[in-house]
Order: sequence, then C-alpha cells, then structure tokens
Amino acid sequence: MRALIDTLLFDWLQVGQLSERERHAGQSADDWRLMLDACERVAAEQLAPINRACDVEEPQVDAQGRVQLPAGTARALKAYIDTGLLAASQDAEWGGLQLPCTVEMAANAFFSKASVACVGYTLLTAGNASLILAHGSPRQREVFARPLLEGRWFGTMCLSEPAIGSSLGDLTTRAEPEAADDPLGPRYRLKGSKMWISAGEHELSENIVHLVLAKVPLPDGSLPLGSGGISLFIVPKWRVDADGRLSGERNGVGLVGLNHKLGWRGTSNCLLNFGEGAPAYGYRVGAEGQGLVCMFHMMNEARIGVGLSAAMLAMAGYEVALGYARERLQGRPPGQRGGAQVALTDHADVRRMLLAQQAIAQGALALNLFCARLVDEQRSGADPQQAARLLALLIPVAKSWPSQWGLEANSLAIQVLGGAGYTRDWPVEQYWRDQRLNMIHEGTHGIQGLDLLLRKASQPDLLQTFAARVNATLEAALADPQQAAWAHQLAAALAMVGRATQAAWASADPAVAARHATPYLQGFGHLVLAWIWLDLQRLGRAELRAPCAYFFAYELPLVQAWLAPVLAGEDLLGEALA
Amino acid sequence: MRALIDTLLFDWLQVGQLSERERHAGQSADDWRLMLDACERVAAEQLAPINRACDVEEPQVDAQGRVQLPAGTARALKAYIDTGLLAASQDAEWGGLQLPCTVEMAANAFFSKASVACVGYTLLTAGNASLILAHGSPRQREVFARPLLEGRWFGTMCLSEPAIGSSLGDLTTRAEPEAADDPLGPRYRLKGSKMWISAGEHELSENIVHLVLAKVPLPDGSLPLGSGGISLFIVPKWRVDADGRLSGERNGVGLVGLNHKLGWRGTSNCLLNFGEGAPAYGYRVGAEGQGLVCMFHMMNEARIGVGLSAAMLAMAGYEVALGYARERLQGRPPGQRGGAQVALTDHADVRRMLLAQQAIAQGALALNLFCARLVDEQRSGADPQQAARLLALLIPVAKSWPSQWGLEANSLAIQVLGGAGYTRDWPVEQYWRDQRLNMIHEGTHGIQGLDLLLRKASQPDLLQTFAARVNATLEAALADPQQAAWAHQLAAALAMVGRATQAAWASADPAVAARHATPYLQGFGHLVLAWIWLDLQRLGRAELRAPCAYFFAYELPLVQAWLAPVLAGEDLLGEALA
Repeated sequence: MRALIDTLLFDWLQVGQLSERERHAGQSADDWRLMLDACERVAAEQLAPINRACDVEEPQVDAQGRVQLPAGTARALKAYIDTGLLAASQDAEWGGLQLPCTVEMAANAFFSKASVACVGYTLLTAGNASLILAHGSPRQREVFARPLLEGRWFGTMCLSEPAIGSSLGDLTTRAEPEAADDPLGPRYRLKGSKMWISAGEHELSENIVHLVLAKVPLPDGSLPLGSGGISLFIVPKWRVDADGRLSGERNGVGLVGLNHKLGWRGTSNCLLNFGEGAPAYGYRVGAEGQGLVCMFHMMNEARIGVGLSAAMLAMAGYEVALGYARERLQGRPPGQRGGAQVALTDHADVRRMLLAQQAIAQGALALNLFCARLVDEQRSGADPQQAARLLALLIPVAKSWPSQWGLEANSLAIQVLGGAGYTRDWPVEQYWRDQRLNMIHEGTHGIQGLDLLLRKASQPDLLQTFAARVNATLEAALADPQQAAWAHQLAAALAMVGRATQAAWASADPAVAARHATPYLQGFGHLVLAWIWLDLQRLGRAELRAPCAYFFAYELPLVQAWLAPVLAGEDLLGEALA
Repeated sequence: MRALIDTLLFDWLQVGQLSERERHAGQSADDWRLMLDACERVAAEQLAPINRACDVEEPQVDAQGRVQLPAGTARALKAYIDTGLLAASQDAEWGGLQLPCTVEMAANAFFSKASVACVGYTLLTAGNASLILAHGSPRQREVFARPLLEGRWFGTMCLSEPAIGSSLGDLTTRAEPEAADDPLGPRYRLKGSKMWISAGEHELSENIVHLVLAKVPLPDGSLPLGSGGISLFIVPKWRVDADGRLSGERNGVGLVGLNHKLGWRGTSNCLLNFGEGAPAYGYRVGAEGQGLVCMFHMMNEARIGVGLSAAMLAMAGYEVALGYARERLQGRPPGQRGGAQVALTDHADVRRMLLAQQAIAQGALALNLFCARLVDEQRSGADPQQAARLLALLIPVAKSWPSQWGLEANSLAIQVLGGAGYTRDWPVEQYWRDQRLNMIHEGTHGIQGLDLLLRKASQPDLLQTFAARVNATLEAALADPQQAAWAHQLAAALAMVGRATQAAWASADPAVAARHATPYLQGFGHLVLAWIWLDLQRLGRAELRAPCAYFFAYELPLVQAWLAPVLAGEDLLGEALA
C-alpha cells in the first residue's frame, strides 16, 4: 500500500507543490515521506498486533464503574501520540506540525488499517480539539484544546440521544444557564442522556472532554423546537479550574452502560447521563443556537476520516485475500483433468473477486486523498471557492461509497478464503464486522444520499464544477486510444446522472426528490469512482490498469440500473408493507 | 409468515392436489396444516428462545475432550424430533409420515427461522439417513438409518479436508480394505483428516454416524487421481455390532479441534482425525468409486435446505426491522418543519429498505418451495423428467440467490435499526453473521455459478423447459393491463440471458465460459426471481403487489449490468494483480 500512497500523493495529487505555500514553509516532500515512514512503522509494530485483542476483549465495566480495555491499548495509543500526528495539521503555536491535510490523512490511513477501533480515540480527540480551536474562546482553547492536542486528555462528540437517532432537532438534553461570567465560558447545568457516545468512558487519559449538543430552555421552561435551538457545550468528565488544573472532583457525567457492538469493539461506546447525582457543568462554545454550525464545522474532515477508515478496512482485507490466494493451491481450471493444483489466483472467479477488492479499496483511498487535497486547496490554495464547491459535492460520496463497497470488498475477502475466512483464525471476518459500522455512524447512508441530492446536487454550480473536472479527464483520455472507450462510457454515465438529477427534482418538491436519494447516491458514487480510476490512468502506471478495466467492465454499467427508478419517478411510499 | 406459507403452498403450488397421489394416500391439506401449526409453535416456543445462547455460548471442548453446548440445545432438539419431522418424508416402514417434500420443507422453514444453528444438527441427520436409505444395504439401513430417523443418533457429511477446500478430487483420506464380509458392509480402515465437519462432535446423541469420502489405494499403494476414485463410507463414532448395538468402544474418530466461526455458532464445526490412535472402521456404501454419486444423490434437497435457511434468516431480519420501523418515531419527511415525529416507515428510504427485504425474503421462500414442489413432481408426478430438468436448472439459483441477497436483506435490517441494529440488544446482527455462511457451505457461490453455466445452462433442453415455464407466466401477465409492462420487462430479461448464454459459450471452451460464471449466475438469478414475483401476481393478492413492483423497478434492471461483461467477453485472467 505504501507505494500506492506515494504515487497518489506525490505523482497524482502533486502534494509536493504544497511546500511552496506559506503555511508549509520549510517543509518538503522528503519530510512528509519520513512522517509517512514513521507512521507506517508504528502502525504495523504497535497497533496491528493488538487489533484482535481489541475485538475479543470487549470493553468491560469493572466493580468501580471504570471501563477497562485490553492491556495493550494504552501503550498503542501512546505510540500513536508520540508520532505527533494528533496535532499534525495544527499551527505550530499549538504544538502542531502544520502538515498538509492530505499528508495527515495519509499518515492516519496506516493506523486505520492497523486497528480502526484504536484510532477511534485519536480521531475523535483531534476533531474535538480542532472544533474548540475554531470556535472556542482563547481560554477554552488553552484549557481544553491544548491537553487534547498533547494527547493527555481525550475527546468525544455527544450528539444523539436514545429517542432521536439521527433527528438532532428533537434532542431533549437541557442546558440551564448558571453563570455567564465563568472564566471557562458561560456555564450551564446540563441534564439529559446521550446515546452512541464513542470513547465516552475509559481510563486511557487524565480527562475526557465531551462536546455536547443541548438546548437552552425558553423563558416558559420549554425547549425550542427544531435544530435552530441547539447549542454546544464543553462538558469535562473531571472538573477543572480556570487554569485547567484538575480539581479531583467528578463532573456530573455518568456511565449508564456500554453498548455491545457487532464490531469496532475496541472503541468503547456508551450511554451517558448528564446531571444525575452531581451537576454536569457545561461551558458554552460559540453563540446560543449555533451548536450545529459549530459541531459540523469540521464535518468534511470527519467524513473523509470515515471514508478513509472504510477504504483501509477494505485494503486490509484485500491484502490478506491476495496473499492467501497466491499461496493456496486448490483445484484446476475447468476442463483440465489431472496435473498439479493451481493457485487460487488462477481461477477466473477468484481473480474477479480480487480485482473487485482492489478497485474498491484503492479507488476509495484515491477518492478520499483527493478530497483531503481539496481541503488543502480550500485552506491555502489559489481558488478556495472552487475547491469548496467540488468538496461539498464529493463529501457524501467520499463517506458513503467506501462504507458500502468496502463492506462488499470485505465480504469478498471472506469468500476468497472460504471456510477459513469465516473463522477467527483469519482477520477478514473482523474487518467485515468493523466495516459494517461505517454506513451507520457519522451520518447514515440514507443521510448521505439526502445530503447529496437535496443539498448539494440541487446547486447547479456544484454540479458544473464537478462536470468541468470530469471533462478535463475525458479530454485527456480521449486522446489515448487505450482509454477512449472508457472515456465514452464515462461521458455517457455523466450525462445520465445529469438527467437523473433533473428527473429527481422535476417536481421541485424536496419530499419527492428524497424518494430517490439513495439510488441516486449509488449511481453518482460509481460515476465518481469511474472518473477517479480514469484520471489515475494519466499516470501511465501498469499496476493501475487492471482495476480500472475491471471497474469499467463490471461496475460502471450498474449506474444505469440504479438510476432507472429515479428516471422513472418511482414512488414506493404508495406501496403497502406486508 | 404463516399466512404467506399457506398462500404459497395451497394456492400457488396447489399442494392439496398431492393428496390424490398414492404416496400421500389418506393425507389431506388439513393434516398438513396441522403439521405446519405444530412446527410453527414448537419452533417459536422451544427453539427461538435459545438462538442467542447458541451464538454467545459457543461450543467448547471440556477437560474430557467432549464438546459442550448451551444447556437448552438438547431440549430444543428433542422438541424438534418429537414433531416427527426428521423422518417426515420417508416411507411409513421407517417411521416416516410420507409427507410431500414441499410440506416437509415448509415445516422445516419455521425451525430455520427460529434457530438456524440448532437445525443444523437435524437437517444433517435427515440427509444422512436419506442417503443410507437410498444407497445402503438392507442391514446398513436398519443399523444406521433407523436410529438416525428416530433422532437417537445424529449424522454428518465428511467431504472436505484441510488442504483441498472444494477440490474433492484431490482428497487424501485413505480407506484400506480389511474385511469384505462384515455384516455391516465391506469394512475398511480409514486414515486422514476431515475439515469443516458440522456437528462433527457433540454429546447430543447416543452415537454420531459420519458419512466419509475417501479413496481406496491402488495396488501400488498410491491413491487414484481425480474424483472418480472416491468411495463413501459409514464411520460411526461409537462402534456397533451387527445388530446395531453400541459396543461401548470408541471408533478411531478423534476431535482435533473446533473451528471458531463468525456465525452459525450453535452447530459445532470440527477438524476430525480418522485412524489416529484407534483404527477407524468404515463400512462402504455403494460401489467403490461411486462415492460422489452417492453423496450428491440428495444434493437437490440439501441445496433447497440451504436456500430455505437463507430465506428464513432474511425473513427473520425483515420481521424485526418492520416491527421496529412501525413503532419507532423519528424525524419528519424532508421539507416538513415542526409537528410530531413520524414512524420510520414514513421515510421513503426506510420503506425502500423494507420492501427490498420483503422482496428478497418472500421471493426466496417462494422459489425454494417451488423447487421442493418440483421434487414432489419428480418423485410422484406425471412428468418426472420435465420436473427434473427444471429443478436441475433452478437448484444453483435456489441455493445461491437467497444466500447472496439474504445477506443484503440482513444488512438492510441492521441499517433500518441504525446503531441499535449494530448491537447485540437486537437479533439482526446475528442473522447477518449466520447468513454469511450460506455463500460458503454446501457448494460455494462460485461453484453454484459453474454448476449453472457449465453443467446446466449448457443443456438446451433445460433452458427450453425453463423458457416455456416463463412464457406461460408471461402470457397470463400480458392479458392483465396492470402486469403487461412487467411482462415486457421480463421477456426482455429472458432474451438477454439467452444471448448471454450463447456469448459465454461462443468458444465452446469451458475454461472460457467459466470466466463468466458468477456474473451469469447473478443475472440468471434475478431473472428467475422476477419470474417468480410475476407468477405470484396470478393469485391477485394485494399484499404481494408491492414487493413485485419494487423488484421490477429496482432490481431487474441490474440484469443488464451484470451481463454486460458476459456479452462483451471480458477476460480478467489477463489482468495483473497488484
């Protein structure tokens, strides 16, 4: 995988050019390669060996109510933190390395591949700190963000609740104002329950910084309706004084219980109660009612993080399956009797399954690194607006496509190993279980579809920006006789997605358009990946040809099938369930 | 589900007519309904409650080397045996009820839905007994088949070995002739290892009857090459005398270890050694070299069993997801602000996911009951040859389609429940894990594709028989204005599969055709299911309309995409892996 990452970063995405920008002054591509070297090594040596233990030894609550994890977790996370990756893209004044987002994401990919559940703690912590740096007061940054970036404290995001699922506007956690002049920020007392809180409780860090969405009651005591009434609060597990020193006193954040998950088990997942027993002090971040805006400020990066973790699980499964298929001798091609058994890779269907995994894992990796590169353009490039438009359109695909097809890739890895893949003697069954979370967390698959069709594809300038980018790829490909047929196929798919967009929005009613959101997401997603694979052919690398050929022959034709009901205006809500 | 089974059996498949046949003389549709009532009740009351325990409390080897299962397993299996289902379709002289295969399979479906892992023991035992009845000597039937059919002994099928996977011709277990005149049959000493043996060791029954494939050495001591040299042996766990009495002496069948599986955990799965320590006596069944013929004699029924279990796992997940989605209030349709939250079923995408599950689960059930009905036609109908042709063609689809799409249905059930579905608080994650085995055992998915394209679709009379059956459905549908559009869609799909068959076989080389086996299987499979759904519309049942509408709008268009590379003659074996 390392060679591919280097190719993608330095040849395809021209990351080296970023060293000319002020933000990355003094850095060079060589520095970044060294960072990748270090992360690749630490991931393989420190995280990969404990990945199975994180699965088998699920988090447990001990007699003192503490969440216990496998012994190696803390040491592995220490090794991660020692790489400097937690603050890698932050300013130097926060201990950061001012790395490009693309390099930071690539470096994190090694860790996700080694143990996706371990990395849950660090990705949440980095995201939490970024949010406080972006929206917190100077003191909130100093008191809360700094220890997070140093890896001494860990962070969480507390959005959902037992009764609301994805419908955040209906949350019922209350925040009663208590003191406007607390040096840590306007202080409130929070009361309510938060569900599905990853890393919500553990003993890995000196403190846990919960970022909690809650509503401030109206004068009549009722909660404001809808998502406009949501505010954001810092709620530490252990109380701190104005200088950030731990007081030794627990804040009113109680662990109700752990969720026992199908996979991704190493990251504890909790139901937390706020304000039961002791008061739960929360310090508001940003203005009242601006909670969702603040919380979703870093959403693009968070969703790239999920997309990359999905790509890495697919990659991990692919590497195991490829190694197994090359070693394992079994059977002969049809029609051949007698003679030595051949490797599994010499069976056409096994090769199809391997190429599918390669096309999915590597394509998903390329897409997400492309998106990370757009984040860098947005931050320090010449045309941040254009980058932002393309990124906005691609993000739901970057998150959902690897989650859906990475799951298929992991299932194919099991299939290549056969019965062996169905046992715990091999890691592929764990990858498959871990992967299943990616279509659920950080915005479900259905929500990605709604985001794409209702919010993004409804903006003509976003689609135009994307089409222009695809057309640039097409122009180059049409000039190459080996790629011209693919270019025609891609052009037809692009046109079809354009027609489907119009068909879905024909009534101009979002409730009607919403019926088509997921099939549209799938069709759009395969279009994007076909474009990525064709664009990669510009590099002229022999090893990138086969997955592209596979994708255009076996995958791209699916676009037409998925968009058929969109173009036909199907309405399943009229059909009875039985 | 019960109402649907009654509709399928008595209205669609006209099972009632079978009571006019000599084999089922004295039986009536009312008797069969009572049998279904009893099985439905016992499955729900005795098996369903222990299904989670069978998963969580995996089989363990105790200090005495015995395999221990959860406490409730034996009682649940006793309740199953007391229904009489083990011998239900056998002759009365063997304690059988002479039930139609269709009724027996439908009755078993309730048990598969309740606990697929529990039913593993009984389905293997029934299949094992059937095989001995078909191919064994009179004494082998009396000594081995009778206690199996009474549920006192359980059975296994020992095919695979650690080094061979699906390539049975390469097996290395040896059977050295010892005594041609043993009353239990020609006696051999077996030596070798057998892998993936379901129910290979346990304490549930007084004895375990292993049916073992092995090779009799040639005069020079070497083993014959290929599958033609394979013979079949009865190898009991406990030795028996000529009258079937247990001698108290262990035969040389040793448990090397248990496989720790991703799902289907309640059925122990073993690596067994034969002939290490004590000799392993085996009694040959059928002639030397006829092992595979005997073993696969009951293959159709075994594969219908897998298809039905896959359909039932999909059904179990669907019922949980539908119940959850109807109860759970969450969010509002896009564009609607404020007001009460609506049920999940009022969200278009959730409804799509539920209809997909319904179309898969119910369609798979219908297909497999249709196949069981063909078994009855083959056994006692007016044109057994025609039934056999249609059955031969449909069997790989009946096994593989529910396995592949049932897995998707179970994944959608998780998705409908969201985070809750990803936890062990709900059964859907277990159904998904259990389901994953169905594409692997009893002939992998790839092998089903090879069976369909290389052995079945290569016979024009099989395809013609199928096309005639589809055309009968089309004729009826074309006469109904509400179904005419579906009929045209189905006719186009049928024609396309015909072209794909010709394209795959254009070179007349099985090795070339084999490249296309799995995509062909998928395209053919969706064609079959579209036909099933359209044929079901003949009944005029309102509740069967929505899944049909879903299938034709969202699923059938996929056929064209899957067959595109078949029609184009793609060859992935020429592509390099990287």
